[in-house]
Amino acid sequence: MKNKLLELNGVSGLYTDFYQLTMAQGYYLTGKHKQQASFDYVFRKNPFGGGYTIFAGISDVLQFVSEMRFNNDAIEHLRSYNFNEEFLKYLKDFRFKGNIYSAKEGEIVFPNQPVCRVEGNLIETQIVETGLLNLLNYQSLIATKASRLRKAAGDRIILDFGMRRAQTLASIHGSKAAIIGGLDGTSNVYSSFLFEIKASGTQAHPWIQSFPDELTAFREFAKIFPNNCVLLVDTYNTLKMGIPNAIITAKEMESRGDKLLGIRLDSGDLSYLSKKARTMLDEAGLKYVKIVASNQLDEHIIKSLLEQGSPIDVFGVGTSLITGQNDGALDGVYKLSMLDGKPRMKFSENIEKMILPGVKNILRFFDSQNYFFGDSIIIDEEDEINTFYHPIFPYKFQQVKGLRFERLIEKVLANGEIILPYQNPNKIANYTKERLRSLPEEHIRFEYPHVYKIGISKNLSNLKDNLIKEIIAKYNEE
Amino acid sequence: MKNKLLELNGVSGLYTDFYQLTMAQGYYLTGKHKQQASFDYVFRKNPFGGGYTIFAGISDVLQFVSEMRFNNDAIEHLRSYNFNEEFLKYLKDFRFKGNIYSAKEGEIVFPNQPVCRVEGNLIETQIVETGLLNLLNYQSLIATKASRLRKAAGDRIILDFGMRRAQTLASIHGSKAAIIGGLDGTSNVYSSFLFEIKASGTQAHPWIQSFPDELTAFREFAKIFPNNCVLLVDTYNTLKMGIPNAIITAKEMESRGDKLLGIRLDSGDLSYLSKKARTMLDEAGLKYVKIVASNQLDEHIIKSLLEQGSPIDVFGVGTSLITGQNDGALDGVYKLSMLDGKPRMKFSENIEKMILPGVKNILRFFDSQNYFFGDSIIIDEEDEINTFYHPIFPYKFQQVKGLRFERLIEKVLANGEIILPYQNPNKIANYTKERLRSLPEEHIRFEYPHVYKIGISKNLSNLKDNLIKEIIAKYNEE
Repeated sequence: MKNKLLELNGVSGLYTDFYQLTMAQGYYLTGKHKQQASFDYVFRKNPFGGGYTIFAGISDVLQFVSEMRFNNDAIEHLRSYNFNEEFLKYLKDFRFKGNIYSAKEGEIVFPNQPVCRVEGNLIETQIVETGLLNLLNYQSLIATKASRLRKAAGDRIILDFGMRRAQTLASIHGSKAAIIGGLDGTSNVYSSFLFEIKASGTQAHPWIQSFPDELTAFREFAKIFPNNCVLLVDTYNTLKMGIPNAIITAKEMESRGDKLLGIRLDSGDLSYLSKKARTMLDEAGLKYVKIVASNQLDEHIIKSLLEQGSPIDVFGVGTSLITGQNDGALDGVYKLSMLDGKPRMKFSENIEKMILPGVKNILRFFDSQNYFFGDSIIIDEEDEINTFYHPIFPYKFQQVKGLRFERLIEKVLANGEIILPYQNPNKIANYTKERLRSLPEEHIRFEYPHVYKIGISKNLSNLKDNLIKEIIAKYNEE
Repeated sequence: MKNKLLELNGVSGLYTDFYQLTMAQGYYLTGKHKQQASFDYVFRKNPFGGGYTIFAGISDVLQFVSEMRFNNDAIEHLRSYNFNEEFLKYLKDFRFKGNIYSAKEGEIVFPNQPVCRVEGNLIETQIVETGLLNLLNYQSLIATKASRLRKAAGDRIILDFGMRRAQTLASIHGSKAAIIGGLDGTSNVYSSFLFEIKASGTQAHPWIQSFPDELTAFREFAKIFPNNCVLLVDTYNTLKMGIPNAIITAKEMESRGDKLLGIRLDSGDLSYLSKKARTMLDEAGLKYVKIVASNQLDEHIIKSLLEQGSPIDVFGVGTSLITGQNDGALDGVYKLSMLDGKPRMKFSENIEKMILPGVKNILRFFDSQNYFFGDSIIIDEEDEINTFYHPIFPYKFQQVKGLRFERLIEKVLANGEIILPYQNPNKIANYTKERLRSLPEEHIRFEYPHVYKIGISKNLSNLKDNLIKEIIAKYNEE
């Protein structure tokens, strides 16, 4: 895959917050741009009150970072803000030459884990921040939402119908992230083109309205699309007209050797109507005709519909999926953790905003049944550990000696070159699905999920404590 | 302005739902693509529980529609889905040649009003639906959110800091819509380039952390940016360190004839800290130094901060603005209202989904103090009316004889060519600001706002009633 979307017509370097560029100019003019820095991407809360997050968007980050450029138009724009000419010359030749380390796209991750790390000089690591956050925060949100819809719908088909309600161009990455999280397809043709995912769709109300009557509209569609015919039955009256006309059409299709794929309900009480529809179709000998339902669905409504025994085969989900309601953003941040070979951390008025210092990795431990047991953040140099500790209360700890483990963070971009081969979202989705099978059910449930164990190694704990002491000593001295 | 963003690398025709293209193929193969159609854009609910909506995004719709194309890559993609070859040939030459009528960008509009109308043949009016909804729904949501922030903040400065939390590329149109709704500027450099709006920004924590100590970091920044210096004071300890160091820096700037613009608080209790900061700055003779506050702000928090007397001069708003929380989408839809010269309407299981038939306009009436009195939807041919009626309960009506009125819907695109001259978002913002002055306060308040009067003309009411009778008669006959 090589799509040019994120080149943003050659001015991709401008896809950033203004302060990144003022700081970058400051680094340049103070000679700090040669200092090596390391930044961590960390989020603080699982979305939707859930117990986990699906990490998505890293492949777009790699594309964006490796192609970040300032062409003449971009430089001209910055000149109008009176940026320094020497600095503008530097930007004109700018190429990201650093490294990125990351969890796999589609990985299950948790709050306060350093899921992605960017290394390089202070300017390059600084100015990619906004784009990186922008691409990871939303896609991880949507992949997580999709996995919740998948949980609710079991093995029924779920389709993304959200494009029209997406936050403008968010539709493009949103439809992709939805596939990673477990949806079966999308209505979004643009995303299907860009990411090679499956698009589908049949008819909406104007098709029905453009014919003198509904039955004619159904018949014509069935003739043109004998293999892709889902009839929308609620234009005039679902039970008295739409379903009877769909049955007539299905019978005519049978006589030609074709099969009606389904009917779609898009208004009214979906539980009531789907039961009536199923009975009518079955009595007409059309057990194979599927029922598609759409209209303001989310994971809770799907769960409720199925608990009521609604015989719905396919769910079309729009707004709540593509805008990630009732959240809207994953709260990911990007924080300096190393500078010039020295570990850094930021204090803050809010203690939970504290970031772990140094170059780190994450070990994921598995129990004897191969379920996730817990994760420990370690100093990257550490090979294995026997115990991990609560990040704030070290008297809480877990023995992990002998447990199988994996290292989650791998190098994905080296010296500005992408080394992670591009993966189709469907392939990533398979990985996510497999990983979710190893996540104990109590972390997946919607209501007050069990908090997943995340600790830090003894060495990391010591590094952090020493740094805190150092900073406090410096306060008192000043 | 001419930006190429919405050309989407030549495959903009794919920026649509799959079913638009199956229907279009169906229209083509049944010869219906020569039929003239008219579609209305209507939304059903003001966002955020508010009393009005700011209409935004129409200039992007015009650009998108007039440049919608299917290049070879797009055709190749559709071929892989087995679209008809004759139809693909039609798409290859596709140009939108219809007309668009719309309310002004930045207009104050209300639910169930036909705010925008697209006329043309059935294919062209159909396939632009998704892009049109996508561009209007989000931008109107964000412009409305911004106007609420403006209401809360009075004449204090409000800046959009949302780019990193935006739903990926939604940041681009979101930052623009925020200006339309009343914000003063954005951190988003890309949007500032594309839409010629003001970007600003100064420093974040890594700047501070990259120096041996905070005071050095402040001093260096002040030297490099003597005219754009806002110091972030919460890296180590706001009151004990950040503000004292900012005061030292400000005094040094004074000695060079420079002035510190402000300090920024980004954590902790913003009310408590801003009061302490103000006192400390004032006692140091720095009354001119502004206080900037950011961190999870929305209109309710800003209102509360000001009610507590917090001396904050500038608010930076991120997530809640750029993702439109607690909504996420305006629920705009696009419905067929005319076909082949005949008015159309859709019945539905949900009565509130009913759409008014025919080619319509909106009259806005003003009271004697020049406040908005109420709006009436009319048949476009009507010149003026004396009375308007509740759309569902016609025994409720309003006399409007003699009241000044305006027609809200104007032609903005003719035969595929844009005729609305491009307006800078700041200019649109001026219009919105002026219009909001004419909207009575009771429609603007956050809590249970008064519902704005929207009626329909007698002629439109008759048209609707006759069409309903006709449809019901047809049911009974079948």
